[in-house]
Amino acid sequence: MATDTNKFQALISHAKEYGFIFPSSEIYDGLGAVYDYGQWGSELKKNIKDYWWKSMTQMYENIVGIDAAIFMHPTTWKASGHVDNFSDPMIDNKDSNKRYRVDHLIEAKADDLEKGGHADQAEVLLKEMDTLLAASDFDGLKRLIETYKISCSVSGTSNWTDVRQFNLMFSTQMGSVSDEANEIYLRPETAQGIFVNFLNVQKTGRMKIPFGIAQIGKAFRNEIVARQFIFRMREFEQMEMQFFIRPGTQKEWYEYWKEERMKWHLSLGIPAERYRFHDHVKLAHYADAACDIEYNFPIGFKEVEGIHSRTDFDLRNHQEYSKKKMQYFDSEINQNYIPYVIETSIGVDRTVMMVMSEAYEEQDLSTAEKKDSRVLLKLPAKLAPVKLAILPLVKKDGLPDIARAIMDECKPHFRCFYEEKDTIGKRYRRMDAIGTPFCVTVDHQTKEDNTVTIRYRDTMQQERVNISELKNIVMQQLS
Amino acid sequence: MATDTNKFQALISHAKEYGFIFPSSEIYDGLGAVYDYGQWGSELKKNIKDYWWKSMTQMYENIVGIDAAIFMHPTTWKASGHVDNFSDPMIDNKDSNKRYRVDHLIEAKADDLEKGGHADQAEVLLKEMDTLLAASDFDGLKRLIETYKISCSVSGTSNWTDVRQFNLMFSTQMGSVSDEANEIYLRPETAQGIFVNFLNVQKTGRMKIPFGIAQIGKAFRNEIVARQFIFRMREFEQMEMQFFIRPGTQKEWYEYWKEERMKWHLSLGIPAERYRFHDHVKLAHYADAACDIEYNFPIGFKEVEGIHSRTDFDLRNHQEYSKKKMQYFDSEINQNYIPYVIETSIGVDRTVMMVMSEAYEEQDLSTAEKKDSRVLLKLPAKLAPVKLAILPLVKKDGLPDIARAIMDECKPHFRCFYEEKDTIGKRYRRMDAIGTPFCVTVDHQTKEDNTVTIRYRDTMQQERVNISELKNIVMQQLS
Repeated sequence: MATDTNKFQALISHAKEYGFIFPSSEIYDGLGAVYDYGQWGSELKKNIKDYWWKSMTQMYENIVGIDAAIFMHPTTWKASGHVDNFSDPMIDNKDSNKRYRVDHLIEAKADDLEKGGHADQAEVLLKEMDTLLAASDFDGLKRLIETYKISCSVSGTSNWTDVRQFNLMFSTQMGSVSDEANEIYLRPETAQGIFVNFLNVQKTGRMKIPFGIAQIGKAFRNEIVARQFIFRMREFEQMEMQFFIRPGTQKEWYEYWKEERMKWHLSLGIPAERYRFHDHVKLAHYADAACDIEYNFPIGFKEVEGIHSRTDFDLRNHQEYSKKKMQYFDSEINQNYIPYVIETSIGVDRTVMMVMSEAYEEQDLSTAEKKDSRVLLKLPAKLAPVKLAILPLVKKDGLPDIARAIMDECKPHFRCFYEEKDTIGKRYRRMDAIGTPFCVTVDHQTKEDNTVTIRYRDTMQQERVNISELKNIVMQQLS
Repeated sequence: MATDTNKFQALISHAKEYGFIFPSSEIYDGLGAVYDYGQWGSELKKNIKDYWWKSMTQMYENIVGIDAAIFMHPTTWKASGHVDNFSDPMIDNKDSNKRYRVDHLIEAKADDLEKGGHADQAEVLLKEMDTLLAASDFDGLKRLIETYKISCSVSGTSNWTDVRQFNLMFSTQMGSVSDEANEIYLRPETAQGIFVNFLNVQKTGRMKIPFGIAQIGKAFRNEIVARQFIFRMREFEQMEMQFFIRPGTQKEWYEYWKEERMKWHLSLGIPAERYRFHDHVKLAHYADAACDIEYNFPIGFKEVEGIHSRTDFDLRNHQEYSKKKMQYFDSEINQNYIPYVIETSIGVDRTVMMVMSEAYEEQDLSTAEKKDSRVLLKLPAKLAPVKLAILPLVKKDGLPDIARAIMDECKPHFRCFYEEKDTIGKRYRRMDAIGTPFCVTVDHQTKEDNTVTIRYRDTMQQERVNISELKNIVMQQLS
């Protein structure tokens, strides 16, 4: 088994080599912190999204989905606080034109001081920084950078601009009027698409509280430091559900959704000890309770999903900015109120990375006679890109015809894969590498008794089964 | 039956009233030419996308999917021709700040002239315009506008800016370097995401020509005149497949895909006479043959899908700009070549609009005694947002418990809907309006013999069936 850092690198290579994830626009040397899903990655991602969608809408009577646009009215982001608060203090070096987050720059200096044996100075520096950040004292932050002679790692100079707030939203211009303020944003989260549609969905769907609205969609953040593969991307996808409740009941619903969401994670076949809850101590301005579900990635425990008790912050602000009453009449208690909200928000790309990390395994299969090994993805059958590989042992004697007949029988029901080139051993290995749970081999005996060899990915065990049983063997694993 | 224009308006109202499609950010009075899909629209759209994805990937052995990012390296759009050519000549009125497409402005004037009895002048004007447009003579176009005293309909003045090219791509700034040229575009089509990944997919997937790469995703165009509901939006979704072939075989594959795609349309249950092919006479710069599949919308025959023989235009240009060899070695003929491409490109939103237009029906159910009517969506069961409604006749006597037990039995298999409020007739009507193919009613007889009434949406016929048969009745219609 590789060490964890090695495993992370191995996983990234594997994802590229086997058509899961490519750097975006790779022929043009890529685009920073943006990735494309290849032939198997796109199927894996779609299976994850479909599983979440089914779990969160079809299986709960009181949750419906929506699909709001990425473009939203710009006032949405005033109301949500993103225009004013979704930003970090930045500073540019005038010689290299490189931009830094001020806190990252100062923290790197403190690190250097500590490594140089000046732990006391480092502590003082970080304390000063915290005070200045808390006070939004940008001039003070610049003076601090100058006092400590912090320089740019590219140019080596300390020729800095002023410290400025840099908003993480991407903006663009819409429409046909030339000099009007037509600036709109690419949504930095999908949640607001749900809140602005709250009244429409509640009324046209005759929804009764408690009820939820779910959504899967892209969001965009102009991260200054975007890295760690698909963990922090500038373009990413979220699966969110906002659950609307009676004020005062948020504690119990928060606990309920923590439990429900953890059950979902365990239903992926990932053991409980690979997860932990991390409670937020410092809460966001909109929350009265919040926690993360963290998964033990090869790069350590990191957030996959957030569960947030958002109070009535969003609906109340949209009411203020839109002048539309965001109220619900609760006939059980004969009261009008702005509902409270519990949010569950999970990253699609992080889930892909989690599922792949968990499934990735390098196995030493060496015997006394022969060195051998394989790499496999032990994906749950329901998430695997290909469910069944159909492999004629040789390219002649009518075996391909039988294999294609099986293909025609099975492919309307689940994704199959046909391959007739190379030795059967090599073909098995390639299917292991993309996580295909079942391979069947059509051989000469098949012509006699209508049986094929089915080979199980994880155990590599093989058994002979009748062709007529195949469909059900696979279907059973999918349900 | 309403007239067609009325039907179009009725459809838009219906889509909003029943939670299919809302104007985006409606509480902020909407955002031009952007729409959100509500609780039933999002399910309908997802079902359409899933059906296309399954048809185009799972069912063809030699087609795989990808999911490329919306953000792409900006050189992509130099290579594709969008930076230089994806634009229209525009002119702004300095008093109203309103921007016009020059050809629209002049055509409107020609219309006025014709209506005023000056058909000859109108003809001269249009001829002059065509000559100037063909020559990209912007000064000439401005002089033409001045000569004919064309004025702005808002300000009433002829105080015009110069004529300029206006690119339809949305742009934004990415990254952390302040003064570098970091302008990137939101993709105006999904096709290029496939072309830049051609080598990655072909190599890692060991694909042999002929093969296809399919993709579903958002695209963005800053349309000046965006209208007709979801027919022409600024943010929209495409389902595209690029099929890579040996040069010289494009004619036969073009015909093949025309036929295959028309079969797909007919598989939606829409009669052949509602469709027609429209061959492009004037071909785009990248095509050597092209046609549209048009559907007879309430607003007339309009393009839903395009089938294009794109030659090697895209791959050849990407090879030139990226210096990466976009070649394929064809072992059958022992030759290296840049593949030719047949594209099938269908709009998701237009397909939603087509399916809803086809399904929408206002029925007069009046009898001698009583006026009555209903509005229904005759959606194919496989596309319907809800497959089965489960309705206890009354809210007591244990009927809701039985209904919920049916719900629990069926909901893992398909989307069900439970409702116990209002008369059974009203509940049926609401299910008709969202296109639910089956309703079952649990009544007092159910307690005695375990049967329920199943009611069919299109015929309104009812029959009693055993509860144990329900799942299979519905499943059969879905496969």
